[in-house]
Amino acid sequence: MIARYTRPEIGAVWTDEARFGAMRDVEIAAAEALEDGPTEEELEAIRASTFTVDAINEREKILDHDTAAFVDVLAASAGPAGRWIHYGLTSSDVVDTGLALQLKRAGELLVPAQRTLAHELAEKAREHADTLSVGRTHGVHAEPTSFGLKLAGYAMETHRNAERLERAFGQITAAISGAVGTFATLGPAYEERVAAGKTMTDDELGKMDYYVEGVGSKLPKK
Amino acid sequence: MIARYTRPEIGAVWTDEARFGAMRDVEIAAAEALEDGPTEEELEAIRASTFTVDAINEREKILDHDTAAFVDVLAASAGPAGRWIHYGLTSSDVVDTGLALQLKRAGELLVPAQRTLAHELAEKAREHADTLSVGRTHGVHAEPTSFGLKLAGYAMETHRNAERLERAFGQITAAISGAVGTFATLGPAYEERVAAGKTMTDDELGKMDYYVEGVGSKLPKK
Amino acid sequence: MIARYTRPEIGAVWTDEARFGAMRDVEIAAAEALEDGPTEEELEAIRASTFTVDAINEREKILDHDTAAFVDVLAASAGPAGRWIHYGLTSSDVVDTGLALQLKRAGELLVPAQRTLAHELAEKAREHADTLSVGRTHGVHAEPTSFGLKLAGYAMETHRNAERLERAFGQITAAISGAVGTFATLGPAYEERVAAGKTMTDDELGKMDYYVEGVGSKLPKK
Amino acid sequence: MIARYTRPEIGAVWTDEARFGAMRDVEIAAAEALEDGPTEEELEAIRASTFTVDAINEREKILDHDTAAFVDVLAASAGPAGRWIHYGLTSSDVVDTGLALQLKRAGELLVPAQRTLAHELAEKAREHADTLSVGRTHGVHAEPTSFGLKLAGYAMETHRNAERLERAFGQITAAISGAVGTFATLGPAYEERVAAGKTMTDDELGKMDYYVEGVGSKLPKK
Repeated sequence: MIARYTRPEIGAVWTDEARFGAMRDVEIAAAEALEDGPTEEELEAIRASTFTVDAINEREKILDHDTAAFVDVLAASAGPAGRWIHYGLTSSDVVDTGLALQLKRAGELLVPAQRTLAHELAEKAREHADTLSVGRTHGVHAEPTSFGLKLAGYAMETHRNAERLERAFGQITAAISGAVGTFATLGPAYEERVAAGKTMTDDELGKMDYYVEGVGSKLPKK
Repeated sequence: MIARYTRPEIGAVWTDEARFGAMRDVEIAAAEALEDGPTEEELEAIRASTFTVDAINEREKILDHDTAAFVDVLAASAGPAGRWIHYGLTSSDVVDTGLALQLKRAGELLVPAQRTLAHELAEKAREHADTLSVGRTHGVHAEPTSFGLKLAGYAMETHRNAERLERAFGQITAAISGAVGTFATLGPAYEERVAAGKTMTDDELGKMDYYVEGVGSKLPKK
Repeated sequence: MIARYTRPEIGAVWTDEARFGAMRDVEIAAAEALEDGPTEEELEAIRASTFTVDAINEREKILDHDTAAFVDVLAASAGPAGRWIHYGLTSSDVVDTGLALQLKRAGELLVPAQRTLAHELAEKAREHADTLSVGRTHGVHAEPTSFGLKLAGYAMETHRNAERLERAFGQITAAISGAVGTFATLGPAYEERVAAGKTMTDDELGKMDYYVEGVGSKLPKK
Repeated sequence: MIARYTRPEIGAVWTDEARFGAMRDVEIAAAEALEDGPTEEELEAIRASTFTVDAINEREKILDHDTAAFVDVLAASAGPAGRWIHYGLTSSDVVDTGLALQLKRAGELLVPAQRTLAHELAEKAREHADTLSVGRTHGVHAEPTSFGLKLAGYAMETHRNAERLERAFGQITAAISGAVGTFATLGPAYEERVAAGKTMTDDELGKMDYYVEGVGSKLPKK
């Protein structure tokens, strides 16, 4: 992102700190969702785990794998309880779900901003409902129109964009399905518990039921 | 469209005959919606109006304007009642709304077909739920997966595409708003009556209310 | 192509007749280039071979393969000599090289037209060298400029586009390399002879030498 | 640029320091090219001018214009001679020509690297000229081919890309033409002198002659 054009609150969502922070949120939610997993005391240690981007970068120089470096640093900070961090997970589980959390936060900033813009444009449109303006067709002057009508076009387009953004952000979903996405390790109910812990949308066509029921109740039917 | 890859029923929507036919549908609906317009007898003549693509092309050689050529041919076929055809309209009203009718017909073919495809893929996915298959990550072989799970991915994607298509086709709207779109000639209520005659969706943010109420009840509010 | 916006001479390059005609040109050049191939008398029969698009379409209904249908119709029209038509070739050889011939013809029309356009724009630019005009920056009026200077920008852009088109069309090449492009059947010298017969550009990095010399004299060197 | 995927030497071309440094190169070359401009002593001071990104950013907070902030900081560092910095120029002259210098440096890194890659691929292609490999058409196994032939395809494509990159970077040009690009202030000969000072390519269709000769000797002719 170009610093001079980035709002601070959006920039904050996409720093390395925020990225690893979102991955840490996933690791904690995943540890909490484990059956026969960490004790409550161990969970406390996991929830208190910390990292620095510098420490992860240093560790990566040895491991040559950024997610592994992140897990190592986080686990070390949690002491013996750290062995439960990343338990049964694959890198994509944490990277993709962490990204989903970042997207969710971005949406919480962008959608209201887009709605405010639509509202402001609509206000201006009403204000200029009777302001005469040159209409144009074929690239040249044509019949007169109202400046408010021109603005109304932008207001409506912006409103539709807000609807689209809201719809897109509403489809963000967790993805805790293990190696090659088969749920072979921990099962789809586990993904659901992790997602619930993060109040993430359950994709209408969530792949998890496919395996739970064998025939996928969420697959499209006639 | 490439003939060898075009389904006949879709091809039929996009012929010149179908295009002018849809424009004729708009002209008839527009004549019917006129207040203090044609008599019932005249309307009968308008509803019985005809054209041929050849006649329109011939007329265009003189007028150098395809919509004007279409209107001339159609009006001539309706006798004296033809003077009500295109009354108060601008070319875009008829061309855009005619295109909207063609799109609507295309959607009536495409959306159910997309849903059938999603269903068929889901059937195959269930059938192969236990068929072992090579999983791939990083472009090489990885943990095993199920062929049904691969197909389920396609089924879900196809289902989402059907939803998107349905949503897009549901936004098709009439556009009978006169020169530069100001409704200066016939007013937005007239557009609504024409659209109703063609059972076309009223765009949630229909521009017509902007002028009816002066402040556009459909413009986005906070 | 949309008929009303297509120049007749360009339209003529892209009809089904022209496409199969270009493929016929390739088949004839290929037969002529065969060593120990048809006799001179047989070549005469091949050069006199004919087809109709209707006949090919009819034949395709049985074969379900358009190139095979084309070959059958062409070969039947040449009598016993027809057995040499498509000898040792794969469909892609004829389809791709036929397309190359069509592209070459299109380029012979488009490049001079683009150069004429650049010239006309340059003429107008010189004519208006002293015509004052409003300059614009940041989307609003700025210092004055000359209308000729604006046109000169279009002239130069058009000239660069003509250069690019000429370069692109100059890279068109024959592709007579057999199944999966290995030259296993007829060898690269054969492709060269066919291309020469059609005065087609030899791609600077022609793949043929790769096999001729084993180490590809035309592959890039340090 | 994403730090983990950026080669340090390319990254160095695109820092804020490098950007303002390139703009400083332009300002110095522009001062040197002025007729009746700075004395030799003043030029020495201009050549010794300095800036820091922090100082520019601080100054921008007051001016709300980054190029103006850059000019102020640079001029202040040169003492009284600083009055010649940016003399007769518009922001675009310095920003665009500075960007051109950065692009030129990037090209000096990218083109040789692309040529090395083409060479390495060609070496591998020759090495595997006789390594049998599965050919594929229609997405399935087909006749056998050679692994070297597959690599030769990549080698040739890479070679063509190197040619394209070299051509593109060869078209980089200075743009010192004043407000709205009319050369009204300093004239095209001045631009030429600045460009020469930076050994920048003279665009084949350089707009400067348009004004020098009134009829643009470089405009395309029939």
